[in-house]
Amino acid sequence: MSILVAGTVAIDNIKTPHAEANQLLGGSASYAAISASYFSRNVGLVGIVGHDFPAEHIALLEGKGISLAGLARSSGESFTWTGEYLDNMNQRVTRHVAINVLENWQPVVPEEARAAKWVVLANMSPDNQLAVLDQCSPEAFVVADTMDLWITIANERLHDVLKRIDLLVINESEAREFAGTDNLILAGERLRGKGPRYVVIKLGEHGSFLFGEDQHHFFSCAAFPLKEVNDPTGAGDTFLGGLAGHLASIEAQEPGFEELKAAVVRGTIMASFTCEAFSTRRVEALQDEEIGERLSLFRLYTSF
Amino acid sequence: MSILVAGTVAIDNIKTPHAEANQLLGGSASYAAISASYFSRNVGLVGIVGHDFPAEHIALLEGKGISLAGLARSSGESFTWTGEYLDNMNQRVTRHVAINVLENWQPVVPEEARAAKWVVLANMSPDNQLAVLDQCSPEAFVVADTMDLWITIANERLHDVLKRIDLLVINESEAREFAGTDNLILAGERLRGKGPRYVVIKLGEHGSFLFGEDQHHFFSCAAFPLKEVNDPTGAGDTFLGGLAGHLASIEAQEPGFEELKAAVVRGTIMASFTCEAFSTRRVEALQDEEIGERLSLFRLYTSF
Repeated sequence: MSILVAGTVAIDNIKTPHAEANQLLGGSASYAAISASYFSRNVGLVGIVGHDFPAEHIALLEGKGISLAGLARSSGESFTWTGEYLDNMNQRVTRHVAINVLENWQPVVPEEARAAKWVVLANMSPDNQLAVLDQCSPEAFVVADTMDLWITIANERLHDVLKRIDLLVINESEAREFAGTDNLILAGERLRGKGPRYVVIKLGEHGSFLFGEDQHHFFSCAAFPLKEVNDPTGAGDTFLGGLAGHLASIEAQEPGFEELKAAVVRGTIMASFTCEAFSTRRVEALQDEEIGERLSLFRLYTSF
Repeated sequence: MSILVAGTVAIDNIKTPHAEANQLLGGSASYAAISASYFSRNVGLVGIVGHDFPAEHIALLEGKGISLAGLARSSGESFTWTGEYLDNMNQRVTRHVAINVLENWQPVVPEEARAAKWVVLANMSPDNQLAVLDQCSPEAFVVADTMDLWITIANERLHDVLKRIDLLVINESEAREFAGTDNLILAGERLRGKGPRYVVIKLGEHGSFLFGEDQHHFFSCAAFPLKEVNDPTGAGDTFLGGLAGHLASIEAQEPGFEELKAAVVRGTIMASFTCEAFSTRRVEALQDEEIGERLSLFRLYTSF
């Protein structure tokens, strides 16, 4: 196993100002694993679904070559998220969350995945993230995401996670809250002080910041420009998967800052596809050439 | 005259969460002209001040080699702006504005400045911007800024301005409002449709977008990272002046997109200095080496 992706697998019901769709494939691990699969043939997913989980979503993940040996099947109901995007597509309102099978989930990493060189802890509770880490190689390069909920209700456990990961990916408002400052440059520095060698702050339509060990190790990455955003759900998870996928593909023993920059760019490109359609519909059906084209355009848009 | 900068010259009183200062040099033209003066020895300012305008501010502008032949001196009182920045330094509240001498001002461009190849219309009323344009060469490359107030109360005249300029510089919220869309990429395209060949949307701490004729002419420019922002007043005006100053310095007959990208980067660097201290205090005392150093760091921060 080259990349292990652990996180949620969900059924999403999403409404935007222009459309609505239900029973969609969702969850942090779904997006991240699909995104990583474009860069590595060896991606495994750790998660849980219920008896009601649509077979077509399972087939889709398997069709991308993702190992589902770590996907637990429960007799309960699947984790379900129902949300709506308001006029400004950046504003998301959660209408309903049914934790269901996630409630008592104890993640189990399959034997063959325990030596994975790259571990992606997609958004899930810090307890679950720590449980996964306990089963993985201490040599793994660990990339982790989180969300505002865990900063509030599981702050101490989240700090435990931070001490054991290499790269934290977090969004802008969470970074400000977690670091206790409105200045994002200072926030990046403070978050690094909590443990991870690298920190990425995601800025939505404005791209992301990557922080390394000192002021010479900073990268301001643009977003890929989109004239139409149809559903940003999962963009951050897709970013995470693309980032880890690129690191796995270059097989750096210990990635340096230049490799991380390149990985952030790949994550950015992958996230842009996710925003273009509901769920994983756009990102699940990509040709490698489309990724390459967007990467060339991205270079054009950001070089001077 | 190589660069003509027309706009406001003000007395600013500014309060931030950490400090307060009064009787400061302010105004769109002051910042823009000082910024441009680092790139061109031939900068002229068109504006107006009252009898109460501090002599030290005049001396400062003259000390930067800026021609004040176009600076009208009135017996009235100077335009004065009193504002405060709240916890998040991005939030600015105007406490008091005294228009004073600006009220009946009819800008007069001195004879020797009428053939200026580069015209900077810093923020002032669209009527005043048009009055300046009427006195300038139709061959000039014209860069203009505006603000939310004019979008609201002088929308038609602002549209007249847009038909006669080459590059519009506008901030994020103004762009959304003026273009009638939350999508900034679409906003840039729509603003270009109103006349200017080029549009820059300023994103504050997130940099700026430069739009040209088609999807291959787009540039996402980062901001220079600052761990401490002490007073962002005038950052946009400084950006404008640095941008125009760079264009003047390379003496391109007709700047192309690559030249505009490079100009946006210079504007960005200059704006970062302005944010570091009250008023023009940091940007007025720069060494060329400091600009060069920041430019090198900026390349490092944005290349991959």
